[in-house]
Amino acid sequence: MPVAALRWHDGRLEILDQTLLPAREEWLALHDARDSAAAILRLAIRGAPNIGIAAAYGLAMQVALTPGDDDVAAAADVLRSARPTAVNLAWAVDRMQSAVLAVAPQQRAAVARTEAEAIHAAENAASAAIALLGADLLGDARRILTHCNTGALACGGTGSALAVVHELARRGDVSVLTCETRPLLQGARLTVWELRRAGIPHELLVDGAAAGLIRRGAVDAVIVGCDRVAANGDAANKVGTYAHALAARAAGIPFVVAGPTSTIDASIETGDEIVIEERAADEVRHAGGALLTSADTPCRNPAFDVTPAELITALVTERGIAAPPTRESVLALLATPFGQPAGCA
Amino acid sequence: MPVAALRWHDGRLEILDQTLLPAREEWLALHDARDSAAAILRLAIRGAPNIGIAAAYGLAMQVALTPGDDDVAAAADVLRSARPTAVNLAWAVDRMQSAVLAVAPQQRAAVARTEAEAIHAAENAASAAIALLGADLLGDARRILTHCNTGALACGGTGSALAVVHELARRGDVSVLTCETRPLLQGARLTVWELRRAGIPHELLVDGAAAGLIRRGAVDAVIVGCDRVAANGDAANKVGTYAHALAARAAGIPFVVAGPTSTIDASIETGDEIVIEERAADEVRHAGGALLTSADTPCRNPAFDVTPAELITALVTERGIAAPPTRESVLALLATPFGQPAGCA
Repeated sequence: MPVAALRWHDGRLEILDQTLLPAREEWLALHDARDSAAAILRLAIRGAPNIGIAAAYGLAMQVALTPGDDDVAAAADVLRSARPTAVNLAWAVDRMQSAVLAVAPQQRAAVARTEAEAIHAAENAASAAIALLGADLLGDARRILTHCNTGALACGGTGSALAVVHELARRGDVSVLTCETRPLLQGARLTVWELRRAGIPHELLVDGAAAGLIRRGAVDAVIVGCDRVAANGDAANKVGTYAHALAARAAGIPFVVAGPTSTIDASIETGDEIVIEERAADEVRHAGGALLTSADTPCRNPAFDVTPAELITALVTERGIAAPPTRESVLALLATPFGQPAGCA
Repeated sequence: MPVAALRWHDGRLEILDQTLLPAREEWLALHDARDSAAAILRLAIRGAPNIGIAAAYGLAMQVALTPGDDDVAAAADVLRSARPTAVNLAWAVDRMQSAVLAVAPQQRAAVARTEAEAIHAAENAASAAIALLGADLLGDARRILTHCNTGALACGGTGSALAVVHELARRGDVSVLTCETRPLLQGARLTVWELRRAGIPHELLVDGAAAGLIRRGAVDAVIVGCDRVAANGDAANKVGTYAHALAARAAGIPFVVAGPTSTIDASIETGDEIVIEERAADEVRHAGGALLTSADTPCRNPAFDVTPAELITALVTERGIAAPPTRESVLALLATPFGQPAGCA
């Protein structure tokens, strides 16, 4: 059975609670914008594209309940503030809000539902396009290292970076080195779960082991997702990504970032402007429910880091590939209509 | 009370069981070489210098029980094979074996005890010298990032890299970013415990967060220990170290390796010849006793990685500093008698 992170039917959003995977597969029913925001905040639903989809449906559910201007604005604010780093969240909420406020209150529920479904469908189509473009780009690479979770649990379709892995596996033998991705272990919990379901050979490793294995020649290519890409191609992604990029460059292997163009934030020039979400210390102090250090150990817990564009071999989007990503090649992608990939800019 | 990992009295070695820290402080009495080897294997005692000390005392206890040639050789083999990467282990066992076999069986117990005590005393003195040289070298650096545990729990005295931190803290304000060091969490469990006891401000972070924080300017210098240093200065250390070195180089901050010269293995030319211990998959699957993934997830678990000499700003030993480490500067250190530091080679 194909993996999905969310399902929408009868005007209600249901999400697979990712905080419980792989031990339990439990679906939660959400009813309004506040439910969606809470699920996003506690990472029950996660991954930049899925956050956008869940926020869109959250606003659609809210508009069906309270379609007034003030209610829409308040719900949009709640959703936007759930997580600061992923641009898809603000992008999806902005798009929903514009569509909804353009029509009269009695039409808003229908418009909101249609708009949310369109956002969801576009992310599914983006995933399929990324898979093909990324697999073409990586060609003969067979030993792939990835970080965090970028599959169906994170994105529409079969994901972003993991969608490329799925397509490579469809074309030939592939083995995947999956970084556990501390502190919240999306690699150990989610990527391993998806790869096992797909029958793709994989090995789990601690995040710190990646660079040494890359140096020792154990990896043909690194492919990761992204949470926000600046106009110059600098990419924010799950904390730990930047070190993999440094190791890939030192070893002379490709470091590829994959994500839908909804992840690109052309309003910021470079990665230095990206706000890095700092999360709770308890995430660092614990793993899998176990306390790893003293209960009051002070912690730093940045959820993301920024990989500078000069370390990125290629940015793969549904509209084409920026290789390498530069201000020119990234903005060219945004100017390309979906369905007419820009090719390798 | 100063921290110590082991104590030797009345011909018996007692060790603080580091697998239980920080939750419990429990001392174990060891009785023979097999006990020492078992404690080393399961990381109840750890850190390259302390492994050497524990092995030396292990052989001393064994020789007091069974001083015959074959018994000594068998005990030495058991100890040497406990862990493959740290050179101190083989170095200490070789030194003990030579001293013991040079005298008649009835003299061996006394000689072995004296030799083990000399190894222990030399490691304590090395720690004190490393602390001074390293603090002189780092000068004004105040925000220090470190990895794994390199304090009294790992080495004689107050440690290697952490001894430098202690000395910097004695001279002025210091704050330490401590990487948790998956899979076995020596940073989260042990370094945090030592720094708290010493009253040195510290924050814990996941290993993957280090590179991004270094890039964002949050760190003045990185200092780590080492488990084996090749003649050309390539240094094997706890897995995760190499990525920190890449990030330090990219950010233009010092990356310093500290360790006693007993860690240098002049018999190997480069780090490519260093055997990297691959440990059990269950270490990756679990943290703090909690299962993080499926119970049968395939894993890679290299315990160490190799940082090439060209990324190392300085190798600080008790005999002086190789800055940068090269075949010439490293061999010059080995040719320098302890007590007459070579200065900055």
